[in-house]
Amino acid sequence: MENIAYYNGCTGPIETMKVPMNERVCYFGDGVYDATCVMSGVPIELQEHIDRFYRSAQLVDIEVPMERQELENLLRTLVKKVEGEVLFLYWQVTRGVGMRGHPYKNAGDKASLWAFVRPSEVRKPNGPYRCITVEDRRFFYCHIKTLNLLPNVLASQKAEEAGCDEAIFHRSGRVTECAHSNVHILKDGVLHTAPCDELILPGIARAHLISACRKLGISVEEKPFALTDMMEADEVFFSSASAPICRVGQIDGQPVGMKDEQTFAKIRDARWQELLKEIEQDKQPRTEKPEEK
Amino acid sequence: MENIAYYNGCTGPIETMKVPMNERVCYFGDGVYDATCVMSGVPIELQEHIDRFYRSAQLVDIEVPMERQELENLLRTLVKKVEGEVLFLYWQVTRGVGMRGHPYKNAGDKASLWAFVRPSEVRKPNGPYRCITVEDRRFFYCHIKTLNLLPNVLASQKAEEAGCDEAIFHRSGRVTECAHSNVHILKDGVLHTAPCDELILPGIARAHLISACRKLGISVEEKPFALTDMMEADEVFFSSASAPICRVGQIDGQPVGMKDEQTFAKIRDARWQELLKEIEQDKQPRTEKPEEK
Repeated sequence: MENIAYYNGCTGPIETMKVPMNERVCYFGDGVYDATCVMSGVPIELQEHIDRFYRSAQLVDIEVPMERQELENLLRTLVKKVEGEVLFLYWQVTRGVGMRGHPYKNAGDKASLWAFVRPSEVRKPNGPYRCITVEDRRFFYCHIKTLNLLPNVLASQKAEEAGCDEAIFHRSGRVTECAHSNVHILKDGVLHTAPCDELILPGIARAHLISACRKLGISVEEKPFALTDMMEADEVFFSSASAPICRVGQIDGQPVGMKDEQTFAKIRDARWQELLKEIEQDKQPRTEKPEEK
Repeated sequence: MENIAYYNGCTGPIETMKVPMNERVCYFGDGVYDATCVMSGVPIELQEHIDRFYRSAQLVDIEVPMERQELENLLRTLVKKVEGEVLFLYWQVTRGVGMRGHPYKNAGDKASLWAFVRPSEVRKPNGPYRCITVEDRRFFYCHIKTLNLLPNVLASQKAEEAGCDEAIFHRSGRVTECAHSNVHILKDGVLHTAPCDELILPGIARAHLISACRKLGISVEEKPFALTDMMEADEVFFSSASAPICRVGQIDGQPVGMKDEQTFAKIRDARWQELLKEIEQDKQPRTEKPEEK
């Protein structure tokens, strides 16, 4: 199939799928999601994405209406139905269907599970990519992968209109993250990345980059850094599930980074080796995890 | 009918209505709304709500797919189909249907218009109502009536679980507004209310309260005030379309206000007189505004 979508037990091409108007997500953005990239049929770092998904749901008091293994089986089953070398695997849980009202206990129905798979692309590492900076006016729940994404939408549109690839958020000069990725800098051989607090999503690609650096003997500073630090950095790159490591060469029309190719290349190669290894391993028959019947 | 809903030209009982899964609102909360109370068949301060709706849409770069007069006609037509002395009239515009992706230009379909009408209640003024306070961790777009309402949902649920009627937000002690209303205090005969900036919604009920105070010769201070000011105020009350003026007697389990009944009663009576007058006037035949054919 060209794509497939799932909603509470129903599946079909995404363009044909419908949901009740009274889904709380339609009035409140009342839900959380997760997503990953599928390469050669393998959903990258799926366990970690599923773990984060259940954490996000718990943080907004939504009970995912499916056990972890069943969800994994469902997602893998959907992936198998779509053709393409690279796919985008997306899923979300919303607080379900009921008459609009802010409080949600006794609102009626249980949470809804949604998913879709469609062809996609992986952003290649070398770029160089171009970014804009945008004042971060988002809420203080950015550590949760919620469906309240209007500021991210507006920033991404602004980036696109500027002919750029990503929007980098900052709070009064403190760099937080991008509209749909984390951002990191290299300075004097040290990786600097914002700490995990309520201002950024704990990116899974971010965690793997940090881990790759540590294995390579590259020091990592998980501390706030400023726009000025970024503009003067040796290297700037962003990361997400669909963009494992993307080198940035221009921000707000100014040239940035591109001064420590050796270190960047070491991290990039380590990260891509890790991804290739996962793809190889995942392709082995998984006898302990029976697929959904 | 018991209720009625509208979505892009289709109408029906709200429980039966469906929308495409690929509505951007399902992934991003990508839309804005407005709502008002209908008393004796009259949608209260409808023009002002419609004005605010178009302003909200413009601020997030969504083009409402209907002219102002046509929208008003549609809303009035829907209202007439539902029985009940008091109704809730709600409408929203979302960025439409298209494959999920943050940037939205060239995303395909035009914006979607939604509405529903259902029986409701008006919150009576005297209460006394009970509130909790909640740290305001929302974004800095609170002046726009967006569909990114997860923090309001969580705060409202917290209030309900505490057996209370509203949650009052504060940013590190600075009172902003409530989860679904504005909040005001009286001290030494002066009305204090938060200024209109990106931290609060410019409430229409709020504007009418201010106007009523001015007509009564009551001074109005539109300046930030603190939690401590609120706890020591002579009177505390909140306001929204469904709660024109609601007296608060308890916050976080502590008694508050209830010390200047005379001034509160003056404002309350002026406000209710204004509402009754609008209901009477609106019931006159409106010859200049033909209904939708």
